Amino acid sequence: MSAIDPNGERWLAICGGIGGAKLALGLSRILPPENLTIVVNTGDDFRHFGLHVSPDVDTVLYTLAGLSNTELGWGLAGETWTFMEQVERLGGPSWFRLGDRDLATHAVRTAMLANGSSLTDVTRHLATRLGIGPSVIPMCDAPVATVVDSDEGTLAFQTYFVGRRAEPRIRAIRFDGATTASPSPEAIAALEDPRLAGIVICPSNPWLSIDPLLAVPGWRMRLEQRRVPCVAVTPLIGGEAVKGPTAKIMGELGLPLDVAEIVSHYRGLLDGFVLDAVDAARAPALPLPTVVTNTLMRTLDDRIELAKATLAFCRTLPADGLERTR
Amino acid sequence: MSAIDPNGERWLAICGGIGGAKLALGLSRILPPENLTIVVNTGDDFRHFGLHVSPDVDTVLYTLAGLSNTELGWGLAGETWTFMEQVERLGGPSWFRLGDRDLATHAVRTAMLANGSSLTDVTRHLATRLGIGPSVIPMCDAPVATVVDSDEGTLAFQTYFVGRRAEPRIRAIRFDGATTASPSPEAIAALEDPRLAGIVICPSNPWLSIDPLLAVPGWRMRLEQRRVPCVAVTPLIGGEAVKGPTAKIMGELGLPLDVAEIVSHYRGLLDGFVLDAVDAARAPALPLPTVVTNTLMRTLDDRIELAKATLAFCRTLPADGLERTR
Repeated sequence: MSAIDPNGERWLAICGGIGGAKLALGLSRILPPENLTIVVNTGDDFRHFGLHVSPDVDTVLYTLAGLSNTELGWGLAGETWTFMEQVERLGGPSWFRLGDRDLATHAVRTAMLANGSSLTDVTRHLATRLGIGPSVIPMCDAPVATVVDSDEGTLAFQTYFVGRRAEPRIRAIRFDGATTASPSPEAIAALEDPRLAGIVICPSNPWLSIDPLLAVPGWRMRLEQRRVPCVAVTPLIGGEAVKGPTAKIMGELGLPLDVAEIVSHYRGLLDGFVLDAVDAARAPALPLPTVVTNTLMRTLDDRIELAKATLAFCRTLPADGLERTR
Repeated sequence: MSAIDPNGERWLAICGGIGGAKLALGLSRILPPENLTIVVNTGDDFRHFGLHVSPDVDTVLYTLAGLSNTELGWGLAGETWTFMEQVERLGGPSWFRLGDRDLATHAVRTAMLANGSSLTDVTRHLATRLGIGPSVIPMCDAPVATVVDSDEGTLAFQTYFVGRRAEPRIRAIRFDGATTASPSPEAIAALEDPRLAGIVICPSNPWLSIDPLLAVPGWRMRLEQRRVPCVAVTPLIGGEAVKGPTAKIMGELGLPLDVAEIVSHYRGLLDGFVLDAVDAARAPALPLPTVVTNTLMRTLDDRIELAKATLAFCRTLPADGLERTR
């Protein structure tokens, strides 16, 4: 199908929400669907109105289905808000906006979970119904909850991120439930597939979107013991995040706003790093192979080009783990 | 305010969904709001998509608020169905229809319950938000579930009533949780209010809509020991129910389709019975005082006239319980 995939090689992408989903979309346009597995953060998941909401999973699903609301940056295109207007009339909580169609995703998920389906089952079902080809897999089936210790106290993730617009200063982040969670059988099968050619950590917030997965012991162990190259695409361009609080959080955690800090954060997990042309001067100082390209994804073509560059780079790296960063 | 309420007397009405709600609306139009308490069946309550749905409570709320969908016979007027259409697209359960605005009621209820509010608190909140004057009180705060033993097996109530359109033949009906439930403090206060002048059992299905409340020991005991007259308004007109499966169920339970059977069913609870002009010939055979009037409520005026006739009749009955049916 594509020159970059001459042998039916499998690829695994790890991502959070918006930024990561953009690269996942690019990957989905250059790989046959059966060759791509996208593993998504679930630390943002929460119950709202009794419904199980999986914000990052839904962002990935809607993005891959071509249904995402590009004006809002979240939710479904062409959404209506009749439900939310009535919630407001009834004095209910309106800080987390759920569109009438988006609601159906959470309702169907909640109903299936109540009937004994796993989150992986549910996500596969939703992806199929939305006409999505690649496998989209939640990082685990057991609940993991990102919790922020901030100057406003301990906050559930969505309270911090949406309710308080990521304004509180973060002191620490923890992932409740992560240490007893494990990758699903489907995720392990994708990781251990002998056809796996490489792993891509998408440009998502390392602390909020990737760390929840890395806090699951079965994930970290398997990624550290990988037999295929793993590359990360920078979430920082010129010391700033394209969107979201990555840079703000790094400052609050006392970290320099530098791609070297991202590489250091992923220590033991990376064989290569994709950095932006803006940061090209930093490349020689990084302790691992790098490639410099345009990482700002404004258009679909940007997403596709970054996906191509990332996979091409990954394929140049040693696959046996002998030259990894320590 | 009204000749029928010269002394600020309090009235308590007990009802299920549609038919009962019509009389409740009539009562609400002739009594000052603070003088009327409406106690509603919750045996129909269930979880759908993880949301707490209280069909009878909502029917009463929407009816009293003037928001009920008179075309459908349930739900909100002017409703939209964006959510349900997306649920169907996603392959979710569509047998129980939830409109976009109706959903907000269940969502706010579920959120408040999750935060520790009682069902009584939630119902008061919703009623206030919808501009409803009278007190609307669920029959209890603890969960009670009507379960039908039928020729298609044991069915949860909504599966029987909506999912299977009340078609299975009923063999028995039980109310899981009823024996350990109790009236809320608010309900007990209304029952024990020294200003209470009478109790009205609305024309709801005795087996499905009133029996759940009567299965709660604290309700049956207090109704049997009442010090004010209690009257029931017939749910049968000429041996038929206006709407719903009352007559069908009586047949399946081997009962004659006769108002005498309704009176017998409420044995020990009634001081008088309101029957329809169609059934006037039956009155002399009934073992308690009766009044004959038009009980078919097609218009708002019908509802108001039936409410007036019912309260006027009730006020003619002895209030000390000495002449009750045994």
